[in-house]
Amino acid sequence: MIQLQPLYMFIDLAGTFAFAVSGAVAARQKGLDIFGILVIAFTVACGGGIIRDVCIGAIPPAGLSDWRYLVVAIAAAVITMSLQPVVKKLNRPVLLFDALGLALFAVSGARKTLIFGHNNEVALLLGMITAVGGGILRDILLNNVPVVLQKEIYASAALAGAGVVVVGNYFKWPGDWAFLAGFLLCFALRMLALHFEWKLPVFREDK
Amino acid sequence: MIQLQPLYMFIDLAGTFAFAVSGAVAARQKGLDIFGILVIAFTVACGGGIIRDVCIGAIPPAGLSDWRYLVVAIAAAVITMSLQPVVKKLNRPVLLFDALGLALFAVSGARKTLIFGHNNEVALLLGMITAVGGGILRDILLNNVPVVLQKEIYASAALAGAGVVVVGNYFKWPGDWAFLAGFLLCFALRMLALHFEWKLPVFREDK
Amino acid sequence: MIQLQPLYMFIDLAGTFAFAVSGAVAARQKGLDIFGILVIAFTVACGGGIIRDVCIGAIPPAGLSDWRYLVVAIAAAVITMSLQPVVKKLNRPVLLFDALGLALFAVSGARKTLIFGHNNEVALLLGMITAVGGGILRDILLNNVPVVLQKEIYASAALAGAGVVVVGNYFKWPGDWAFLAGFLLCFALRMLALHFEWKLPVFREDK
Repeated sequence: MIQLQPLYMFIDLAGTFAFAVSGAVAARQKGLDIFGILVIAFTVACGGGIIRDVCIGAIPPAGLSDWRYLVVAIAAAVITMSLQPVVKKLNRPVLLFDALGLALFAVSGARKTLIFGHNNEVALLLGMITAVGGGILRDILLNNVPVVLQKEIYASAALAGAGVVVVGNYFKWPGDWAFLAGFLLCFALRMLALHFEWKLPVFREDK
Repeated sequence: MIQLQPLYMFIDLAGTFAFAVSGAVAARQKGLDIFGILVIAFTVACGGGIIRDVCIGAIPPAGLSDWRYLVVAIAAAVITMSLQPVVKKLNRPVLLFDALGLALFAVSGARKTLIFGHNNEVALLLGMITAVGGGILRDILLNNVPVVLQKEIYASAALAGAGVVVVGNYFKWPGDWAFLAGFLLCFALRMLALHFEWKLPVFREDK
Repeated sequence: MIQLQPLYMFIDLAGTFAFAVSGAVAARQKGLDIFGILVIAFTVACGGGIIRDVCIGAIPPAGLSDWRYLVVAIAAAVITMSLQPVVKKLNRPVLLFDALGLALFAVSGARKTLIFGHNNEVALLLGMITAVGGGILRDILLNNVPVVLQKEIYASAALAGAGVVVVGNYFKWPGDWAFLAGFLLCFALRMLALHFEWKLPVFREDK
């Protein structure tokens, strides 16, 4: 685990950055002022982790007490605001970072929940919530129906990633294999879903 | 209390089921995908209890750690999705279960808060929030103004039920009488309100 | 600190009152029933503090356990409902109370967070959230994009006020000077922004 720690931290901050960019872009489109854009960027980046930490008793939530997340979120918002044309071209990298962030937040959320001594169901649900909670808060604040619940493989990929961590913990897989496998599964699911435009079924309402 | 426990558990799970059905029906109407429907169903069924548990320090929230709620919520969502014509006919039973769930969640929320050593005001407010929090989260996520705040006797019935538990606790009524009386009061208020179409006054805005 | 305590309590309750009035007015305009208006009024008045208390581990949240807030919020809602013409004339006093409440909630939120032993970043963020969280919840429940994120100097003034408390704590300023200075800065910023119609920049989207 020791050698991988810097890599995790890099992916964690890259995911935070991508989530914050997605928040800043959406907030700017809604006509929010500079401060509102910063708030939404931070909320998307840290909201899921804050909900998780409140539910597992990790007080204060890391998203509020670790300055690195705040700095990365502000940087992402400032870059989004000042380099709008560049960000538009960055659409593909942003989706890539977003998928990296989704995958890492899902597995790290599940792992943190297990480390705090909670059961498998809590780890599974909070892993998913860590990954998608910020995006749901973004859509609630901007008055949209959460995109993650109506389009593509997103929350379900996060659940799959968290599930691998829980299964690995249950069968006591050695080292960080479950963490890595869950991360790769979630990331692969998300990227494949984007590439092949996989969608989950929707019902047509017959009224 | 001992003999009534299985009955409470049955009503608790029946209420969870009814709340989940209401979430699944609403999510389906909004065009969410299968996974989104599951998430909304679970949120409606367990959201109120999770807010209560976070506020009273019951970590992790029972809604996240007790697999029975998750299973019942998923079952309700799956049934709603696969048996749409049946569910439409079920409108009256669903309203009945919903009223049972409302009443039981209100009194059990108030009682759990008192058991955790908090004061009467907290028990009153969190009893109501346990009962209506899930429905409010459903409407927030689906981008509606919460129905429970604008129509009929609903949150107010939950408050009345929680109030009976608090009063009974204050005067040290024996056994589970306060619990039963609060449950019956809330349930009766809700059913009568449905039957006679009782509504609370609304102001016409003179602009 | 001792002599100022009654003054703080008065401003605290005046701010609660003003926040509750703003909630009741907005809820009435949306056509909510009497009970819905009470719920929104209470939510605006106490929501920010409840989020703060959950995040710092102050269980149960003071907004749920201290009857004074509940009484003041209900009184504000009842007055708003019964004296609509008066409240309309009261627009300027309400904005004044609102600015007082904003300033006091920001500095008291930051101070309470520091007293609970959390770091400066947490105090800064939760000071702001205490002040603006209720208004954001109001807009979420009433299905609007939060006003505090898109208009005028509001959340940013709260952040400035909380910042003074954090700086004063860091440099160990004597007595309550930081508290008073933060309060005055936030209040002055907000009143000046109202008077001169200061706004933060908004981006025009070039689609």
